[in-house]
Amino acid sequence: MIETQLTFLMSDVFGLDEVLTRQQYSHLDADQVSAILATGAKLANTAFAPIAAAIDTDEPEMRNGRAITHPSLRPALDSYAQLGLISTNLPLESGGLQLPALAGSALMAHFAAACTPAAGYVFMTAAAARLIAQHGNQWQRDTFVPPMLEGRWYGTMCLSEPQAGSSLGDVQTRATPRKDGTFSLRGQKMWISGGDHDLSENIVHLVMARLEGAPPGARGLSLFIVPRQRLDGTWNGVSLIGLNHKLGHRGTTNCALAFGADRECVGTLMGAPHKGLECMFHMMNEARIGVGTTAAATAYAAFRYALDYATTRRQGRRFGTAEPASLVDHPDVRRMLLLQKAISEGGLALALASARLLDDARTLPDEDERHAAAILLDLLTPVVKLWCSERGVEANSAAIQVMGGAGYVEDHPVERLYRDQRLNPIHEGTNGILSIDIIMRKARSAGGRGLQPLFQTIGRDAVARPWDSQLAVELSADLAHASKSLEQVCQRLAGPKADERETLANATPLALALGDLVVAWLWLKQVRVVDRRTDEFSTGKRAAASFFNRYVLLPSIALAVTLERAGAPHARLTPSEF
Amino acid sequence: MIETQLTFLMSDVFGLDEVLTRQQYSHLDADQVSAILATGAKLANTAFAPIAAAIDTDEPEMRNGRAITHPSLRPALDSYAQLGLISTNLPLESGGLQLPALAGSALMAHFAAACTPAAGYVFMTAAAARLIAQHGNQWQRDTFVPPMLEGRWYGTMCLSEPQAGSSLGDVQTRATPRKDGTFSLRGQKMWISGGDHDLSENIVHLVMARLEGAPPGARGLSLFIVPRQRLDGTWNGVSLIGLNHKLGHRGTTNCALAFGADRECVGTLMGAPHKGLECMFHMMNEARIGVGTTAAATAYAAFRYALDYATTRRQGRRFGTAEPASLVDHPDVRRMLLLQKAISEGGLALALASARLLDDARTLPDEDERHAAAILLDLLTPVVKLWCSERGVEANSAAIQVMGGAGYVEDHPVERLYRDQRLNPIHEGTNGILSIDIIMRKARSAGGRGLQPLFQTIGRDAVARPWDSQLAVELSADLAHASKSLEQVCQRLAGPKADERETLANATPLALALGDLVVAWLWLKQVRVVDRRTDEFSTGKRAAASFFNRYVLLPSIALAVTLERAGAPHARLTPSEF
Repeated sequence: MIETQLTFLMSDVFGLDEVLTRQQYSHLDADQVSAILATGAKLANTAFAPIAAAIDTDEPEMRNGRAITHPSLRPALDSYAQLGLISTNLPLESGGLQLPALAGSALMAHFAAACTPAAGYVFMTAAAARLIAQHGNQWQRDTFVPPMLEGRWYGTMCLSEPQAGSSLGDVQTRATPRKDGTFSLRGQKMWISGGDHDLSENIVHLVMARLEGAPPGARGLSLFIVPRQRLDGTWNGVSLIGLNHKLGHRGTTNCALAFGADRECVGTLMGAPHKGLECMFHMMNEARIGVGTTAAATAYAAFRYALDYATTRRQGRRFGTAEPASLVDHPDVRRMLLLQKAISEGGLALALASARLLDDARTLPDEDERHAAAILLDLLTPVVKLWCSERGVEANSAAIQVMGGAGYVEDHPVERLYRDQRLNPIHEGTNGILSIDIIMRKARSAGGRGLQPLFQTIGRDAVARPWDSQLAVELSADLAHASKSLEQVCQRLAGPKADERETLANATPLALALGDLVVAWLWLKQVRVVDRRTDEFSTGKRAAASFFNRYVLLPSIALAVTLERAGAPHARLTPSEF
Repeated sequence: MIETQLTFLMSDVFGLDEVLTRQQYSHLDADQVSAILATGAKLANTAFAPIAAAIDTDEPEMRNGRAITHPSLRPALDSYAQLGLISTNLPLESGGLQLPALAGSALMAHFAAACTPAAGYVFMTAAAARLIAQHGNQWQRDTFVPPMLEGRWYGTMCLSEPQAGSSLGDVQTRATPRKDGTFSLRGQKMWISGGDHDLSENIVHLVMARLEGAPPGARGLSLFIVPRQRLDGTWNGVSLIGLNHKLGHRGTTNCALAFGADRECVGTLMGAPHKGLECMFHMMNEARIGVGTTAAATAYAAFRYALDYATTRRQGRRFGTAEPASLVDHPDVRRMLLLQKAISEGGLALALASARLLDDARTLPDEDERHAAAILLDLLTPVVKLWCSERGVEANSAAIQVMGGAGYVEDHPVERLYRDQRLNPIHEGTNGILSIDIIMRKARSAGGRGLQPLFQTIGRDAVARPWDSQLAVELSADLAHASKSLEQVCQRLAGPKADERETLANATPLALALGDLVVAWLWLKQVRVVDRRTDEFSTGKRAAASFFNRYVLLPSIALAVTLERAGAPHARLTPSEF
């Protein structure tokens, strides 16, 4: 069960107890954190998991200009808000619980495993409230944060437009100053999750728009708080102009919105003019780690379902005997199950490792150590999102394959989880964009040595300890070798002498290999915790670590090495030559 | 367009003209074959492609015990039948067109690219009619084949049962002899594509069942022809008991059927008693190549759509400039497009290579050469199905990713094609089962040298020719090296000294690598045809071949080599340790 995994990762691997000793968490003890997580887990299992199929099958509909959601959705979300869970990641002074990120991520994973499309509404609301708490002025904080934390008002982020998806520099929505210091907004936004619905009294949109005379491109964007209803309760000119019908994630409305088309739409500026992107990056980084966490949990949910099915479904004979077998007895089925375990538990570890870095960057007493944690976190943020989503799709596909025809039909949740998962490589920055971020921007910084902090951290752990078991010794040696190899590939492909076009063309496979390396490191960490234990949980962890090492890490590094001579034959084709 | 690809492969790469010189095809000339293909292509584009979205959205429904299909489906299928296309692969003496398999596969690819779920009905009917023509007695041939070729009666294959999916040995449907030499059938069948519908006057089920006193297991199965309606027009006791709702392939009904539950169900034995599986293997092998062909075409259709979208959709700036770019200008998008091209065109080549081997095995004048072709075909049959479907899912996923959010919504066909494609690794023998077939059965035959004919054939072509271009020389050298490496891995992992459980556990990744090798060989063949040409088509082929070599083959062989020390850590876990 995911509870067991998350507790193990939080407490045994990533040291929640130590984090709780920090001054910022002095209002909490371990029992309180456990109680909050147990409450969350219970709600996820009893209110979210049971509605997952229904909100997928009966998609939201557009009626009289509003998005109408499934009736089972609101009660689940209301319970979430009533338990105060929207506020877990907000600081005390904003009325939040100020939970460590480690615990906050675990909480998120519970709900994501149960029903991501439902939880999406409150996840986004929490992220938006947090951004306002951090960057809003006093009036904005007082006005918007409390009703959001109470779940009476929900939040969104409005970046993309019909003509500007990944290319934020082309955002055209305009903001014009009004006499009273507010702004009048005009434009269209696209792909807005939770952009309209019937779940809350109001919807608080955080809208990227351009002020008159702003510098061109993404550096000329400003951020505005634009509620769907004005504070007097009248409509604020935000119109729902379309509802997207998606492959998965169907319970979350996804909207095309028009601002100021049918009535003046009034918003207030948050942060400094033209600094919207910097401000929004806080929310986007949080959202990226959130997507990674969600992707890992989605893979894990499918894995557990497929494992249960494989354990109970009789099929064929045990190898070399006439005894009836279950699916799980067949070596190829085991391979697919262990692949899912290695990816999904590896992904959860990656998500919680980032959360721990977030805690460290915020709360370590020593400033240099905080800074070091922040640097590592900055490197890992795109990796968490792209790795968990990319490998997550593989894992969710394997869950279908384990079940054969049964995996392909809607009687079982694995086909739905596969559809849900397929969103994750796309939203909150496509995996291509994130790969470019890590390889073109981060790796190439510091004269091509931008990834050094990561390689050094991994290298330090990849030294066998005197008390390491044979497995840990093997994993350490392979990890050390893999890290060295990948560092060399990165130096050549992303170093200062590399052909930039070729680097760009190879960024995605390289970033994925980097993710494999990071997750292999986290598997070694997990193995060291269970190294001498003989219980079933520990045996499974060792098998998954070994599997990951041999079936994911080593092939991946071998692949990365072949990239060095790949030379990007696609870099120079014209469209009609394809 | 797929027409261009198929003509190139059929004529320039796989020598249709030479095949047409064979005595069995003396009733045809190249112009006639072209005319048939052109007619097929036109019908596919005008009658099948336009209904693809509708038959997916409005799924078949069960009403009054029958499966009711979308009203647009029947007219399209009737046109297919009226043009005589169901009969293309049947011999002249059965009323068929006796088209070379090469042309038959190309025809299939046209319809699969347009709308596989529609074409499935007539593909299965053709395969069933062909089996009856080959194995039926005079009465069976006279009774069933003509109305099937006319499209008045459709066909199915009924193997799986609720408790027996991949494990055919556990089939429980019983056949009891009646006094008049016919048989009474009783049992349930599951996952029957086209098992019920309102598209034809009758449905001819080919049913695997067990005779009283039959040997246990798969070797005790017999094959029966069981029409839904008896010849007097009354119902024959085949009941529709459930309709599966699937992730994709929604236009094709997929049924649970009961035989003899509500009325006696009468069938006739086809072939010898207990020899049903041998008989059915003909149809299954044909179906496997068919699934591979379909998978390649499904990937190709999505690739072309994504390419068009990427060419017209403006987004971002050209690398290093301020000029507006289209998606296709971005290196990472090109990588994903060329991956799709390399996989889908490679898959079409693999499908047509098998078709050519089928023609050779049937029509080469020399018996030894026919035998050699049959052996290669036998090795390639599982590879075609598993490779095209496995890599096809990757390609279809890349089509979504190229389009970003637009790829994830139902406004564009790529999400549907992705869902359709996901069936292909499952049906007609899961890819796991096929991998075991090729690695455990075929590779290990002849004292572990069962794959020799394939490695030798590839090895002969992997020698650079004096007139080869630099690219062809590079591809030859890499192919020779890859072939040698993979041969060694196979000898160790599937050789007589290998641990069988470990071989089983590694069969799937090994089989996929073998497929990569075969497709790399076929890319070299394509490059040799266009080697000195300077047109856009040829430039694109060279780029795709180079991309396949560097981004698929080399990493894949590197991966296969790592399998040697993998040691299958999953082989010995208990279910509760997962």
